Amino acid sequence: MGMAEGKIVTAAVVVIGNEVLSGRTRDANLHFLALRLNDVGVRLREARVVSDEEAAIVAAINECRARYDYVFTSGGIGPTHDDITADAVAKAFGVGIGIDPRARALLEAHYDAGVLNEARLRMARIPHGASLINNPISRAPGFRMENVFVMAGVPAIMQAMFEGIRHDLVGGAPLLSRTIGARVPEGQLATPLARVQEAHKDVQIGSYPYYRGGALGTSIVLRATDRARLDAAAEAVRGIMREAGAEPIEGDAP
Amino acid sequence: MGMAEGKIVTAAVVVIGNEVLSGRTRDANLHFLALRLNDVGVRLREARVVSDEEAAIVAAINECRARYDYVFTSGGIGPTHDDITADAVAKAFGVGIGIDPRARALLEAHYDAGVLNEARLRMARIPHGASLINNPISRAPGFRMENVFVMAGVPAIMQAMFEGIRHDLVGGAPLLSRTIGARVPEGQLATPLARVQEAHKDVQIGSYPYYRGGALGTSIVLRATDRARLDAAAEAVRGIMREAGAEPIEGDAP
Repeated sequence: MGMAEGKIVTAAVVVIGNEVLSGRTRDANLHFLALRLNDVGVRLREARVVSDEEAAIVAAINECRARYDYVFTSGGIGPTHDDITADAVAKAFGVGIGIDPRARALLEAHYDAGVLNEARLRMARIPHGASLINNPISRAPGFRMENVFVMAGVPAIMQAMFEGIRHDLVGGAPLLSRTIGARVPEGQLATPLARVQEAHKDVQIGSYPYYRGGALGTSIVLRATDRARLDAAAEAVRGIMREAGAEPIEGDAP
Repeated sequence: MGMAEGKIVTAAVVVIGNEVLSGRTRDANLHFLALRLNDVGVRLREARVVSDEEAAIVAAINECRARYDYVFTSGGIGPTHDDITADAVAKAFGVGIGIDPRARALLEAHYDAGVLNEARLRMARIPHGASLINNPISRAPGFRMENVFVMAGVPAIMQAMFEGIRHDLVGGAPLLSRTIGARVPEGQLATPLARVQEAHKDVQIGSYPYYRGGALGTSIVLRATDRARLDAAAEAVRGIMREAGAEPIEGDAP
């Protein structure tokens, strides 16, 4: 991956699928992409789940590609009538779509002649001007259209596709993070914690209460691109925990 | 719950939280709400995950409350500096916000006098004109502002809050669903399945491939409000599976 010095690089994920909205399936792709984008210095700023309806997909893609540096979609690129993502992306970009010879060749190499029917050939429909994303598992490719990466919904395939494109992403400075916990209720830390946040504006500080082993506790998550500033804010957080009578615990609280 | 005869009632979920976007936490609230809303005849049409930033929350709430009958938010109503959902909702509706006497009374009854500090009192900040949503677990209430229901992010609390409001929701006709599987690849069913969809326009038909026990299979999910039409489409799906040489399996494929 490349790196854009000093710049904050942002992304949105658009999950396409009625099955997630109906509760039939639990989406797993958002969590995977959240972690992996972090690793390459891209900050996931928003995620959307939209239904298998063209207008919904077009709106989500156009809103997100205007707001964020990258957009990653998952779902809706299979062979059946409810797989309409490629057509929706073509519409969002105002370009044509048709059977792509490169994609067709991939499918022809994968399927026996009689098995590559008209429905399966739909998986070779790619918007004009897009580049292909390799699918090492079931061959039907994803594609990239400008800053929009269109990937499969099946998690194993989406993950394999992402591994193939991650080196093309130009990330910003990676966001370093640190988690410090203490067995003290969140409400007791809140006022001094707000002062720590005020004094360390370049560190993003999140507070997450938990209840474990019969005791209330709080995990404080700090994120920053500069290690020295992260360390300074972390030390301030340890200080307010000790003042509250609790011993800071490094890492996610046990 | 009430019922709006013949009308399709729609909803969006807005999950507020950097922790989901950073991959630190896997969101569990979307899946819960997807299932529960279905039960009361409300169709979840979109979900968004946004960061703990006022502009992002305001935009998501205003876009979703204009597009859908109901909006359910989770997250950002605790006592710490990063809990800004109530203020964002007030801004989205263009109303004031302040300590609500009803919410304050709930917190005063729950916390000992010295423990109800300024930070915890922030949890009593409620936009003007909102009604409260009961929190049977940790007392700090959620609230309803017109068609927007603001709930906690901690799953156990969000779920308890939802149980308290679900009878206030006016749903449409419940969406009946049926799942039929077969050990046949999706690409082989796709063409006849598109014809079944064409012939049963009032039934929503989704196709989901799976790979289990060394064999490819397909689950077809049918959804409709009319049982007779659902049955007719299901029978047509069984027919195309048999034509493809596979025995239909009722329910999610084993």
